[in-house]
Amino acid sequence: MSPFVPGTSVRIEGRAGGPLAGLTFAAKDLFDVAGHPTGGGNPDWARFNPVPTRHAWAVQALLDAGATLVGKTVTDEVSLGILGENAFDGTPLNPAAPGHVPGGSSSGSASAVAQGLCSTALGTDTGGSVRVPASFCGLYGIRPTHGRLDLAGMLPQAPSSDTTGWFARDAATFARVSAVMLGEACPPARPARLVIATDAFGFADPDTAAALAPMLERLKRLVPDWHAEILAPPGLVAWGRAQRTLQPVEAWETFRPWVERDNPRMAFTVARGLVLGAMTPEAERGWAALTRREVRGRLAQLLPPGTVLAMPTTPFPAPPKGLPVPALGPVRDAILCLCAHGGLAGHPQLSIPGAMVRGLPVGLSLLAARGADAMLAGTALALEEIA
Amino acid sequence: MSPFVPGTSVRIEGRAGGPLAGLTFAAKDLFDVAGHPTGGGNPDWARFNPVPTRHAWAVQALLDAGATLVGKTVTDEVSLGILGENAFDGTPLNPAAPGHVPGGSSSGSASAVAQGLCSTALGTDTGGSVRVPASFCGLYGIRPTHGRLDLAGMLPQAPSSDTTGWFARDAATFARVSAVMLGEACPPARPARLVIATDAFGFADPDTAAALAPMLERLKRLVPDWHAEILAPPGLVAWGRAQRTLQPVEAWETFRPWVERDNPRMAFTVARGLVLGAMTPEAERGWAALTRREVRGRLAQLLPPGTVLAMPTTPFPAPPKGLPVPALGPVRDAILCLCAHGGLAGHPQLSIPGAMVRGLPVGLSLLAARGADAMLAGTALALEEIA
Repeated sequence: MSPFVPGTSVRIEGRAGGPLAGLTFAAKDLFDVAGHPTGGGNPDWARFNPVPTRHAWAVQALLDAGATLVGKTVTDEVSLGILGENAFDGTPLNPAAPGHVPGGSSSGSASAVAQGLCSTALGTDTGGSVRVPASFCGLYGIRPTHGRLDLAGMLPQAPSSDTTGWFARDAATFARVSAVMLGEACPPARPARLVIATDAFGFADPDTAAALAPMLERLKRLVPDWHAEILAPPGLVAWGRAQRTLQPVEAWETFRPWVERDNPRMAFTVARGLVLGAMTPEAERGWAALTRREVRGRLAQLLPPGTVLAMPTTPFPAPPKGLPVPALGPVRDAILCLCAHGGLAGHPQLSIPGAMVRGLPVGLSLLAARGADAMLAGTALALEEIA
Repeated sequence: MSPFVPGTSVRIEGRAGGPLAGLTFAAKDLFDVAGHPTGGGNPDWARFNPVPTRHAWAVQALLDAGATLVGKTVTDEVSLGILGENAFDGTPLNPAAPGHVPGGSSSGSASAVAQGLCSTALGTDTGGSVRVPASFCGLYGIRPTHGRLDLAGMLPQAPSSDTTGWFARDAATFARVSAVMLGEACPPARPARLVIATDAFGFADPDTAAALAPMLERLKRLVPDWHAEILAPPGLVAWGRAQRTLQPVEAWETFRPWVERDNPRMAFTVARGLVLGAMTPEAERGWAALTRREVRGRLAQLLPPGTVLAMPTTPFPAPPKGLPVPALGPVRDAILCLCAHGGLAGHPQLSIPGAMVRGLPVGLSLLAARGADAMLAGTALALEEIA
């Protein structure tokens, strides 16, 4: 399927002479583009919201920098999904892994960049929605520091975890776009210290962990002061559970007024996720909120300025398309165990093309201190140079 | 909206010279019509099921009797709904109450008959899906004795409660169709005894109960040996709860293979109902199963052969269309308290046009012993004659 939203056609030229002149971009259909309905990946979302009269901040930023908008891209319904299968708009092609999902919820943005239909594309990442498609499609994709970018005009899901991210096929383009989005130069960077998250590599499938070893070796050559450490002492599973508690509860708060007014059409699993969010017991919410506090402390301790942490972005490459519903939960939950720290603690994380596993791409992720997003883009540049 | 399924066109002439020659009928889109996909009111149902090569038993019976099939009608998604609002196919017009729901799930069948687009129409009644639209649209509509009719080619929901029913605008046509469907003549009948279910009238809105008084008086003239009695000693609410436990559990068993393979698109509330069915605790199921046993005993005792029981079909006339989701549950649950005995005990029940309340129709229901369906059709005929 096309990565662009069926029936839409958008083209807005970037401002002449900006730093992104000559680049094209696409925007996930959660971002407002003035004069075009924001579809949110669901046939009943646009009915609830007026056609926007202003561009989202991120769209405006890229246009102002000279990039040309060439389309709005398919997303999992109102960003509730991690595999990139949309029952209404179809599953965008993963050109690096045909027959496999592109990853979601920023599925169309990753697909469009991976297919070479645009230079970069905007996504959102609440629980993994940029990192996972970057990993599955073999792209550079960032979840920036939570709270750093202006999210105006971006359809929210769980505001305490929501971020705006972007994709590119190469480190140079990625750094160029990042400099604009972050408002900060992104020169090649060599971090002072490297932490390798042993539990995360242990959690990944053995062939995925093994395939990432060469890229990890390259990273060690770039950052010789490295050591191995456990990322999540209580277990990645506990962190995953905390995020899978907090995020659906917040998503239900976000979407409840819409759902209650419009009784929208949804894929069964999307509706089920909202129902379970609505039914989450208070004791579980309280435990998850405390766990988030603990995760924040842990990441602050592990990631002082100048340090990067390396881990697999996903525990395996893209699963096949069209898995039956009972198979989806275990796949999703395993992915979310490796992504949960993002929503819980808000540190920036960049997934870079890490390896091929049985012919399918999988990403290696670099995390850093809050605010050190530019260093991550710079580290990717430097890594490419020492290849 | 049209009562017929969007994009479908069906016409099959009835056999010449049969007892229903000159009549037309429509079939709810849960009934197989050879060569036409059975849509089931959901865009992803037909994908799960091959196009039928045989007519459903009920369709064949009417065709063999000489009635001509003129269309397939809109239904609540896979019969899961009581109001008649379908997020994909629209809400069929209730010509007796414009702006109000037609009732469901046999919404299109009731609408088509009420609009005069056909003489009769097939519906299904698991938890009230013929009785409720009959009440809301001012029609005759029967839920026959459970297990009496052949349900081959009818899309099941909760087999221990599922029945095939039908609608007509007048008692004579209703009796004529009933004779064919039941395989038994339906002459005018005068029951020996009448029970008036005081708790059911007390449960109805006061203006609805008051409006039904004249029709109840007419019934008492037809059946002078009447007395008032409580239908549900443990409470209509307890019976409603039992049916609202058993039916979604069985519906989940029915639809689970489809949902798990196809992750179908559904209105939020339809998906929520299935999720809650899947999550019902075993203790609740056990209580409901025992309560069903008690209800069966109670109805057998109240309704020996020759007795009819009268009660309001619904506690109020048709609610307005487009109620927000939080308002739907209380409305649905109140309706189901007056319908639950049907699925629980399987006695035949005929809803006849009972009264107008604030300009909106509401039905009066007649119940009888299992197997006494023809007597109910005959009682309706006799009632019309003494008008």
